[in-house]
Amino acid sequence: MVHYIGISDIERLVGDIGIGPFLSRLADTIETDYRRWDEFEKSARVASHSHDGVIELMPASDGTLYGFKYVNGHPRNTAQGLLTVMAFGMLAEVSTGCPLLLSELTVTTALRTAATSAMAARWLARPESRRMALIGNGAQSEFQAIAFHELVGVRELRLFDIDPAASAKVAQNLARVPALHNLQVHMCSSVREAVRGADIVTTVTADKRRAVILDETLVEPGMHLNAVGGDCPGKTELSRELLLRPDVRIVVEFEPQTRIEGELQQVPADHPVTALADVIRQRAQGRRSAQDITLFDSVGFALEDFSALRLLHEILNEQTGPVRELDLVPTLDDPKDLFGGTLGRSSRTRLRRVA
Amino acid sequence: MVHYIGISDIERLVGDIGIGPFLSRLADTIETDYRRWDEFEKSARVASHSHDGVIELMPASDGTLYGFKYVNGHPRNTAQGLLTVMAFGMLAEVSTGCPLLLSELTVTTALRTAATSAMAARWLARPESRRMALIGNGAQSEFQAIAFHELVGVRELRLFDIDPAASAKVAQNLARVPALHNLQVHMCSSVREAVRGADIVTTVTADKRRAVILDETLVEPGMHLNAVGGDCPGKTELSRELLLRPDVRIVVEFEPQTRIEGELQQVPADHPVTALADVIRQRAQGRRSAQDITLFDSVGFALEDFSALRLLHEILNEQTGPVRELDLVPTLDDPKDLFGGTLGRSSRTRLRRVA
Repeated sequence: MVHYIGISDIERLVGDIGIGPFLSRLADTIETDYRRWDEFEKSARVASHSHDGVIELMPASDGTLYGFKYVNGHPRNTAQGLLTVMAFGMLAEVSTGCPLLLSELTVTTALRTAATSAMAARWLARPESRRMALIGNGAQSEFQAIAFHELVGVRELRLFDIDPAASAKVAQNLARVPALHNLQVHMCSSVREAVRGADIVTTVTADKRRAVILDETLVEPGMHLNAVGGDCPGKTELSRELLLRPDVRIVVEFEPQTRIEGELQQVPADHPVTALADVIRQRAQGRRSAQDITLFDSVGFALEDFSALRLLHEILNEQTGPVRELDLVPTLDDPKDLFGGTLGRSSRTRLRRVA
Repeated sequence: MVHYIGISDIERLVGDIGIGPFLSRLADTIETDYRRWDEFEKSARVASHSHDGVIELMPASDGTLYGFKYVNGHPRNTAQGLLTVMAFGMLAEVSTGCPLLLSELTVTTALRTAATSAMAARWLARPESRRMALIGNGAQSEFQAIAFHELVGVRELRLFDIDPAASAKVAQNLARVPALHNLQVHMCSSVREAVRGADIVTTVTADKRRAVILDETLVEPGMHLNAVGGDCPGKTELSRELLLRPDVRIVVEFEPQTRIEGELQQVPADHPVTALADVIRQRAQGRRSAQDITLFDSVGFALEDFSALRLLHEILNEQTGPVRELDLVPTLDDPKDLFGGTLGRSSRTRLRRVA
């Protein structure tokens, strides 16, 4: 039997642990996996593009476990009451190919994206960073807000969205989380207002077209930019001039993928970047000075989903209560007898329909 | 909610329809999809090779539906009581990325492989073919036997396996299916004995190394060879000399994949082949004469799994009884409010663990 984590299970699991400790443990798991970067079989995602969006498969393996994620991106879905991004994934054993865990990854993707952002900011932002602008207040905003509060120490959040109702929704949701009472939340009426004086700027907008949410006139020395929304060809958030500034240090997850999908798609293919894995392994410097502008050009990498699946599998194994299971693969007395152990054993299996 | 077909469901669905009619409908669905070959986004599978086996993802899309299969191949699994091949897959809507159906595909892969083999044989074997040799009597044998009996009209089956117990298992399983009483089953003590005088030779062995199950001295004019077992680099069943015979006509599913994974890997990259889709669309001839030896160099193509998922989805929609469902993706009142609709709505969601 294959373990199963549905929406109700992820709500319970995260609720039991607490979203703060969960994000913290997830960030540590992702950091651990980035640290053993060379052990991973890495590949860019396999994308199927259509008029309305994209469907992707994202596999990763460390030689012991294999994980993959199915994920879509359909910006117009919300108009018909559907999520823009839906995801699920599987963790399997490399030595046998046995599926171990099938899990929802819609909620988990939002958690792992926020955990990765906050983990990267711990390496890249100035240590005294307390004020964050959050531009784009859609499905991922609360996760980013909580992760930066919990893991980076953000105490002041400045919200901006072209739709003020979206910002109001975030403010309301955050106000309901009791332990966030020492996070000040401000609604802003422009990107400029939100960004001015911020230590960290997180952009997480969803438009599937080249947009300029943040340009070179808005950023200030020492800022850390956490650019999450630009994650597919033609979908960017920053101006080309900003990327080309000599004081902007660009850090990426998996360079071959980010060159195609990230903000990086706007600049020449030889524009210098630093690998997040090298920063974490202290083989390269992310921020060189308090004046540098660091930019985490995040697109989401399969390793992060692998880490999330690996953590969920660990957590299930720590559970004392019942775990849901699926009969997704056969369990046979004789593994060489697939027919006899499935269709053939049933008296119902007949060649023709019985009248 | 996402529809779910587990092992117990596939047993019930196939049992209700009857395995004969099910295979027949599946073969027709696969043939229909091969006929609209040009509508499909096609790609070779994405493989992750390890010491013990391979894990693959096989996506396909016709622009309306998207399907993919997860499948492993671990020849040594049976020694620890596990299946060599385990699989599951997903069907989704291209316009929204919404998952529609999650299904077991271990049993279904055996069914679709047999349905594809029989469908190809309808186009390639001599019409009067009644006698089939079945070399390799592992997990897929009964499915091949039933499909060729039902769809091609095979009346005599000659079994051979290096392990006589495997042949005995197949004979026993087939004897239990009442409507197969007019299929004569013979156990043979050598490949030569099984193949002599056969109209069709099906090879479906599992060894992951270059093997010669069938060579040029064993085949006879007019035979149809259904080579199923050679399906990954280094895993072949036929001799190179057999492939190079001028009277052997090689038919393939998706040429770029078969050149790497099929028997075809043994011969030069420009060795002539015919696409199964072209035979079905009557753009190319498979068999030109009763003397030709036709060879279906089958490796299994993502389109066939797509067809199987599409058929299972159709069958579920025809069901009047209850269909199992999974909470694999969230259903939200406000699709822009992922946090509020999942973790945030629960009073359990707190920032820190409560003592």
